[in-house]
Amino acid sequence: MYLHGRNVLKEVLALPRASIKTIKIRRVLFTDQQNVDPELKTLMHQTKSKGLRVETASQRVLINLSREKKNQGVLVELREFPYAELNLISNLPSDRPSIVVMLDSVQDPHNLGAIARTSVAAGADALVITSRASAQVTPAVVKVSSGLIFRIPVIRVVNLVRAMETLKDWGYWIYGSSTQGEHYIRVPYAERSALVMGNESEGLRRLVREKCDALLTIPMADGVDSINVSAATAVLLFNLREKLTGDDRP
Amino acid sequence: MYLHGRNVLKEVLALPRASIKTIKIRRVLFTDQQNVDPELKTLMHQTKSKGLRVETASQRVLINLSREKKNQGVLVELREFPYAELNLISNLPSDRPSIVVMLDSVQDPHNLGAIARTSVAAGADALVITSRASAQVTPAVVKVSSGLIFRIPVIRVVNLVRAMETLKDWGYWIYGSSTQGEHYIRVPYAERSALVMGNESEGLRRLVREKCDALLTIPMADGVDSINVSAATAVLLFNLREKLTGDDRP
Repeated sequence: MYLHGRNVLKEVLALPRASIKTIKIRRVLFTDQQNVDPELKTLMHQTKSKGLRVETASQRVLINLSREKKNQGVLVELREFPYAELNLISNLPSDRPSIVVMLDSVQDPHNLGAIARTSVAAGADALVITSRASAQVTPAVVKVSSGLIFRIPVIRVVNLVRAMETLKDWGYWIYGSSTQGEHYIRVPYAERSALVMGNESEGLRRLVREKCDALLTIPMADGVDSINVSAATAVLLFNLREKLTGDDRP
Repeated sequence: MYLHGRNVLKEVLALPRASIKTIKIRRVLFTDQQNVDPELKTLMHQTKSKGLRVETASQRVLINLSREKKNQGVLVELREFPYAELNLISNLPSDRPSIVVMLDSVQDPHNLGAIARTSVAAGADALVITSRASAQVTPAVVKVSSGLIFRIPVIRVVNLVRAMETLKDWGYWIYGSSTQGEHYIRVPYAERSALVMGNESEGLRRLVREKCDALLTIPMADGVDSINVSAATAVLLFNLREKLTGDDRP
């Protein structure tokens, strides 16, 4: 998998050394014209100093590998995207609030990338996606997330309902976004909260909806029943963050 | 301008007759295979009964005109997108709260479409964009908005700072989204509020920022200073809606 662009590389280089290791970077490929570009030269030095393998190639090769003309002279080659295991959630510290975001069949890569970025910004601890009928983490998703997707464990599960049951065993309360729930403003969140967002047109699947402890609704103007799923995730997640960690905390 | 897809047509047909007139629809073009498709047949009847001009053509012609294979057998041809005039805002009823969304050089059509949809859902009264260095309303934008962009007046101005001054004269308070503002939760909104969102990478331009009555910030996790502009708009706009019209109203 080839990721392109300087922001992605900068995000990778800003991670702790242990996290960089989990990403399994095969190599970082720079355009052979980096000498005329001071920023690229600096990035190349930083990449080397992190112990990553650096190679150079012509801009033509970079375009061929990334299929992207605007690659800014940098490709990061990964073996594969480093999905995390569900168990990670059971090991989160219990002395502070914890937020997990779960996606039930979100299909648009743009939405997955934006939700990953929002989740990191709202301080969520993990993002759970399903392995079937869902957007997976591709270079386009990494790009939309501005590279921030590397700052949150992305967990891929076969069966979302079973993952919800497991989270309940670990003390999580599960809130599903739905058009027929309670006003989200009125919902008190648990210290361990998971927020489940549904597919772009169908919303939550029935079994997923039934497994939720509570359903939340964002009330809207007359005649409108939904907004973009990444916008809805942002509204709910920042309200959750505010209630769990902010000034409004009881 | 050709718009494709059944949702867009359904949104148009759901509008009041006077609004349909302002859209200046040249014709609605159906695939000549609509007889095998009951929904399309129904849509064709509804379109005719609204007094719109209906024509049929082969799927090949539809693809050529819309450059979109997945056009669902329907194109709506507009003369041009019906931008509204700024004066419209001065005529909004003064006995209820009013919200205006202003975009300072938002460039991604995906963001403009999502912001239009969110603005309608949050009950905003108008959306102001700039005519230069900004995404304009294209078929892609209409599509991302799920056709909802027709339910809000979109006003195009040459000079955003001057438009802000005019809104101030009409009694609006102007809130700008910025990384260096007040926590948005703590800001009390005026009954007439305008929210200004900045460009995807640069944020608000200096003159625009200086013209704001207050700057708002969404506090984020360490090391993250921004989320996607359409996600940020959703967070701020639904908080504004909640404060002006919701249960939290003082």
